Amino acid sequence: MSCALCDTPGGKLLWQDDFCRVVRADEPDYPGFLRVILNAHVMEMTDLSPTEQQDLMRVVLATEATLREVMAPDKVNLASLGNVVPHLHWHVIPRFADDPHFPNPVWGAKLRDTPHAAPANLDAQLAASLIRLLAPAPGKESR
Amino acid sequence: MSCALCDTPGGKLLWQDDFCRVVRADEPDYPGFLRVILNAHVMEMTDLSPTEQQDLMRVVLATEATLREVMAPDKVNLASLGNVVPHLHWHVIPRFADDPHFPNPVWGAKLRDTPHAAPANLDAQLAASLIRLLAPAPGKESR
Repeated sequence: MSCALCDTPGGKLLWQDDFCRVVRADEPDYPGFLRVILNAHVMEMTDLSPTEQQDLMRVVLATEATLREVMAPDKVNLASLGNVVPHLHWHVIPRFADDPHFPNPVWGAKLRDTPHAAPANLDAQLAASLIRLLAPAPGKESR
Repeated sequence: MSCALCDTPGGKLLWQDDFCRVVRADEPDYPGFLRVILNAHVMEMTDLSPTEQQDLMRVVLATEATLREVMAPDKVNLASLGNVVPHLHWHVIPRFADDPHFPNPVWGAKLRDTPHAAPANLDAQLAASLIRLLAPAPGKESR
């Protein structure tokens, strides 16, 4: 089984290991829209083992922490949908009271035209934060 | 701080402990639309401790497993948004190729009028499955 997320990174690569990767999506309305993508082609969270579920959520929540650190959003939205591409991936989206859809989901009705401004050098800041937050604890092997 | 999810169950109560609860939402288009709601008023997953994060995801994923067992959906959608009510709650939504929005998110454009049929006695089936899947392992204390 192969799909778009098997064959392409799915965005600008910010962090990766042998299990999953973090990319910045190409979403002009949301410059800090990140995705955590499982490398293997698996459909549902409950198709993973409990350890794999925890490993993936650790990366999803480190990605949330990175967005809070770098962009200080008013809210973070997390979602695993996969109706179009049934390959496990999490949307991790920084939301701001003045962003194009707030308080609607980004998939709902658009209310404004201008994205919330993003920091200069966004990719480098996000990547540096992810590397630090996802570093293995001293004395522990990486996964 | 108090809000609608502090003051009301937020749906038909199917399972609860002292940490969180599982309710069936009042969403006529989606008879199996469940929510996992933290009892405490906390905004983001990264405001919880790592143990609390794991405890909450264990219930979210048992809820996904329950929906797969009882309704056999084509896909499960998971989301923690909270833009309107910033009190941690997870949407756990069974999706079917013939449901009103598929393959769009349930917050996107509606494509059909009729919900996918739900089993008779749905609440009882969901509650029984949740109780079984969330039972503490023998010899282990409940949380």
